[in-house]
Amino acid sequence: MFVESIKTRFSDTDALGHINNTMLPIWFEGARNPIFELFTPNLDIQKWKLILARFEIEFHGEIFYGQDVEIRTGISRVGSSSFDVYQEAWQSEKRVASGKTVHVYFNYDAKRAEPLTDELKEALLAYPLGQD
Amino acid sequence: MFVESIKTRFSDTDALGHINNTMLPIWFEGARNPIFELFTPNLDIQKWKLILARFEIEFHGEIFYGQDVEIRTGISRVGSSSFDVYQEAWQSEKRVASGKTVHVYFNYDAKRAEPLTDELKEALLAYPLGQD
Amino acid sequence: MFVESIKTRFSDTDALGHINNTMLPIWFEGARNPIFELFTPNLDIQKWKLILARFEIEFHGEIFYGQDVEIRTGISRVGSSSFDVYQEAWQSEKRVASGKTVHVYFNYDAKRAEPLTDELKEALLAYPLGQD
Amino acid sequence: MFVESIKTRFSDTDALGHINNTMLPIWFEGARNPIFELFTPNLDIQKWKLILARFEIEFHGEIFYGQDVEIRTGISRVGSSSFDVYQEAWQSEKRVASGKTVHVYFNYDAKRAEPLTDELKEALLAYPLGQD
Repeated sequence: MFVESIKTRFSDTDALGHINNTMLPIWFEGARNPIFELFTPNLDIQKWKLILARFEIEFHGEIFYGQDVEIRTGISRVGSSSFDVYQEAWQSEKRVASGKTVHVYFNYDAKRAEPLTDELKEALLAYPLGQD
Repeated sequence: MFVESIKTRFSDTDALGHINNTMLPIWFEGARNPIFELFTPNLDIQKWKLILARFEIEFHGEIFYGQDVEIRTGISRVGSSSFDVYQEAWQSEKRVASGKTVHVYFNYDAKRAEPLTDELKEALLAYPLGQD
Repeated sequence: MFVESIKTRFSDTDALGHINNTMLPIWFEGARNPIFELFTPNLDIQKWKLILARFEIEFHGEIFYGQDVEIRTGISRVGSSSFDVYQEAWQSEKRVASGKTVHVYFNYDAKRAEPLTDELKEALLAYPLGQD
Repeated sequence: MFVESIKTRFSDTDALGHINNTMLPIWFEGARNPIFELFTPNLDIQKWKLILARFEIEFHGEIFYGQDVEIRTGISRVGSSSFDVYQEAWQSEKRVASGKTVHVYFNYDAKRAEPLTDELKEALLAYPLGQD
């Protein structure tokens, strides 16, 4: 599991006084950096290997401006050419949001999905995180 | 069904050269304005009645900068105190993304969900849009 | 002068109940699309010719969610290898924000600024907009 | 001077392969949290005391995805009812952007600017940062 601490920003809020829901995909994508680095060391965009197929996010509670948010990130499924990242957002010891993202291992030159190598599967499985 | 046309912006793109996936929740939320107006005429935030419980988005193809995107928005489910909004993004006659959002009818004073009135159910059902 | 009408989105607001100031650079960059097209027809990113050197934005009044915003865009200065874009945001017949952006005509291969051709200068000067 | 370290996100990039310029106002506003706290302890939005009058940002170099960015924040001017925040973004030991923001001390009930108290002036002057 990877853990990242996020400082909330005034611009993250919305008129209801809390963090707007559209920030979660942004926070979650940012917190997947260590996953991206398993595929692309140094995050060199010329060597990108992943495509995002879908994501889903559930909101469990209000997220407040002014208190740090902890994002927990891990792997909940490894398939033949795709895998799921499961993530949670925690604030003040409460789980305030959770989400799952499906990434496909993709060859941008050939423009098609490729089977994950055993090395990549192993690297992913080193960071398990289960959905409740 | 509601239809909104969106001009893509340079800041919507990412380093892979396409529109970044995190723009879709923003576009979709924006295109739900007419749904919000069924609950809160004039979009007066003091009278807000909805809470977002979850959303999911699928990506069917790359979205390009420089060509307008059409967002189609409708209701795919009406429950007792919640409903689903189904949305699609189209560009150059291809469906490039689709998503579902679950909204709960919420009483912010009492801090709990409330049953949808018959009037609201009827108003929602006037804009059906089915998931394939 | 170019004019673009923008629908405000719930996610554009902040906890003070208005549109957050960080949306203005995004709206203004989006409304510069027609300027970008003078340099790069079809907005093909492989043929990009501009670099942003600086921008400044002044806020003249609150911007509200639920009412369209009109962005007015024009050229306030044409130099030898750079030019200024002046922009205003209007809502409910009030000028709510204004800004200036300095763009440099840039050769990405040679990695240096280049003199604007007479054709480009003329194209820019066809869309004047003065700062008060 | 306040210092905040920022992890870059994939969604911060644009199609030219670098961090998009519209992220700077967002990063800078986030890094002004400690300034906001001088006026509003705990960042309680009900007790907000500031209005943003204008900002300007200069871009000195490309900002890359994958390397942390350091934001330096301090006060460059204290007036009778307003003050300037000067900020710089550094990456890999290069100053990549700088900016100035003018905030007005504002009474939201009376809807007008108020003179900064001596206590507030002193608190601000404890964090000087000069523009070159």
